[in-house]
Amino acid sequence: MMRTRPLKVALLGCGVVGSEVARIMTTHADDLAARIGAPVELAGVAVRRPDKVREGIPGELITTDATALVKRGDIDVIVEVIGGVEPARTLITTAFEHGASVVSANKALLAQDGATLYEAADQHGRDLYFEAAVAGAIPLIRPLRESLAGDKINRVMGIVNGTTNFILDAMDTSGAGYSEALDEATALGYAEADPTADVEGFDAAAKAAILAGIAFHTRVRLDDVYREGMTEVTAADFASAKRMGCTIKLLAICERAADGESVTARVHPAMIPLSHPLASVREAYNAVFVEAEAAGRLMFYGPGAGGSPTASAVLGDLVAVCRNRLNEATGPGESAYTQLPVSPMGEVVTRYHISLDVADKPGVLAQVATVFAEHGVSIDTVRQQGKDGEASLVVVTHRAPDAALSGTVEALRKLDTVRGVASIMRVEGE
Amino acid sequence: MMRTRPLKVALLGCGVVGSEVARIMTTHADDLAARIGAPVELAGVAVRRPDKVREGIPGELITTDATALVKRGDIDVIVEVIGGVEPARTLITTAFEHGASVVSANKALLAQDGATLYEAADQHGRDLYFEAAVAGAIPLIRPLRESLAGDKINRVMGIVNGTTNFILDAMDTSGAGYSEALDEATALGYAEADPTADVEGFDAAAKAAILAGIAFHTRVRLDDVYREGMTEVTAADFASAKRMGCTIKLLAICERAADGESVTARVHPAMIPLSHPLASVREAYNAVFVEAEAAGRLMFYGPGAGGSPTASAVLGDLVAVCRNRLNEATGPGESAYTQLPVSPMGEVVTRYHISLDVADKPGVLAQVATVFAEHGVSIDTVRQQGKDGEASLVVVTHRAPDAALSGTVEALRKLDTVRGVASIMRVEGE
Repeated sequence: MMRTRPLKVALLGCGVVGSEVARIMTTHADDLAARIGAPVELAGVAVRRPDKVREGIPGELITTDATALVKRGDIDVIVEVIGGVEPARTLITTAFEHGASVVSANKALLAQDGATLYEAADQHGRDLYFEAAVAGAIPLIRPLRESLAGDKINRVMGIVNGTTNFILDAMDTSGAGYSEALDEATALGYAEADPTADVEGFDAAAKAAILAGIAFHTRVRLDDVYREGMTEVTAADFASAKRMGCTIKLLAICERAADGESVTARVHPAMIPLSHPLASVREAYNAVFVEAEAAGRLMFYGPGAGGSPTASAVLGDLVAVCRNRLNEATGPGESAYTQLPVSPMGEVVTRYHISLDVADKPGVLAQVATVFAEHGVSIDTVRQQGKDGEASLVVVTHRAPDAALSGTVEALRKLDTVRGVASIMRVEGE
Repeated sequence: MMRTRPLKVALLGCGVVGSEVARIMTTHADDLAARIGAPVELAGVAVRRPDKVREGIPGELITTDATALVKRGDIDVIVEVIGGVEPARTLITTAFEHGASVVSANKALLAQDGATLYEAADQHGRDLYFEAAVAGAIPLIRPLRESLAGDKINRVMGIVNGTTNFILDAMDTSGAGYSEALDEATALGYAEADPTADVEGFDAAAKAAILAGIAFHTRVRLDDVYREGMTEVTAADFASAKRMGCTIKLLAICERAADGESVTARVHPAMIPLSHPLASVREAYNAVFVEAEAAGRLMFYGPGAGGSPTASAVLGDLVAVCRNRLNEATGPGESAYTQLPVSPMGEVVTRYHISLDVADKPGVLAQVATVFAEHGVSIDTVRQQGKDGEASLVVVTHRAPDAALSGTVEALRKLDTVRGVASIMRVEGE
């Protein structure tokens, strides 16, 4: 029972992802039609540079007027792959006003102002799907929104940025420093010329906001996410991690508080045990670990970026949205009914690995231990190493609120016998 | 906008999974209502032993007459967790006839006669969801049916039976033999009193049939799946695997042929490299590795069995099916449009690891190598070890059709200089 009038799809953006979406729509047209129940037709492509040669896309479909395209009124689904907040937001809301459903890969916009998009979709009875916004090809948004819709998710912890994972993996494997590993990532095309969004954790923080909102059925915005980049991770940190049977990953961690009354979302480098499934995620791969009350511990793994993987996620959404159009139905919209507040980083319960340079004389450990005790932070292990009047002290704490832990570090800095705090790293995944 | 008339759900079966579904429906009623958009009400529970105490389930809901329950006509969703082919099949088709949608965890029935269920669902415009039938809580059916609906899946390879993975992991870790490891699994509750369905690969074969059908959009039945159990895997096999940098797993492998014109599905023990993501799946965990044209290599990992994990999958489906009822829509039904045939095992391209006991005299290797050449099988590596007139010869082949490989082994058995074939194991994941 195949409908013959095709569903019309328009692309906003035709870069690495958009051109791959267009290519697959053409080369796999029969499969897509069979799976949707109607053919899909590329009805327009909005681009910035109309003169660029775009293989396989008829010239008459190309336009520079994205606004006119979303206002056409005959488009069933808009695929937005231009990224950034504006003009994407206005184009998407305009698309909804003119009857289209939307598939987007725009993590920045969803993290900054997902609510506006959801509301516009809901108001006009249209779909907003965005599997490609987080962890590329890895099915993650749909499993969280749908497969686990009958469960209670307590934690989502993942490697959601391939660039930084490539750099950290290179540092771990070769013993290289940060800048050397960054150079390698840049040379191989894993890092952009300006790597700030990746290495400072902005990209991962946007994904954390999206994941936390979906996992906990509440609204979490980019500003709610605590963020630390990984530019200060050193070869010495990796050596310390190895001594503990750990490696270092840049993690996005979304957690429900123990009392269930609030949630947290954060991005920072952390030591995790080598036995943890996330520890063995190599190169630019992504992986997300989910803990749910009934399901237990799940992990989703795959390529987190790239034209083809991202296009796979976009096309999966496209098939679902097209089916919904044929059914005159919509998929699940925003679910933010819990309205759980987002707590600040100080309330997150975690562990610290602290390396101190201290004077090599009796009583230093007692002094340091007193500072921990005064802040209510319990010590798990201490390792002392001394030479020539200088010594280093490595302390790993038990779990405590981040505010108590960072307060401890501030107090340690003020001790006469502490020459400096060589490094601080959180320890997760235990 | 919450509808107040509740959706009525009936349970067929109230064992480990069913009772957990009932419990979560009660304890998480508000969350389920918010996510569905209407409350859900447990409207009946069909059991075999009505006298058993079932905490939290009102006695008046209990019935032994499952047929009357599915015929009631006021039930929105039937959750079938009794397992086995009959009476489950008749109950499910009757439920569709009387207007209910169905959530099932019944891998045996789906593998044996999924077509009948799909057709009944389609004829009556109702949903058939079965995430819980494969790999417990791991979201897998929905990602394959929906997230990857715009992609072309070429291979699904997984550990889909927790009992056998526990046994193999124990053998790998402790050097124990099969029966010792089985005893441990039984003592810890990971293996049933009669472990046949697990250790002989029947359970995994049912899951392979379901996965292959969905992945390749065709019909694959249990009888189409080649099956070898893992009862003959020995400690010596693990020692050989280690020497190759491998471990041994019972794998379910569904593949599209290189020419794209047919598919295969099989279950057997195989050596896989330690660097493969499936190699590190420990204890009773499940994991499924998926290779798709655009998405690349994905992996899904989690608990493959148990009351709570399976209930999580059932409830995720329940939420989706209830939403569809409210929308007066249905989710994706059967997709078997490719009608790709299933090829026999002989056509599967794989590699063999063969251990031979041979006479320790000159010329044996030449003789053995000639047999391989005559069957068109190319040798990757050979390792010879001799002592006291006896010797062993370990041959690892390059990729060849299974028929050529098994033909080679038959011919080797006939050589005078070959005293016996100590073991044969396929090598996968490279």
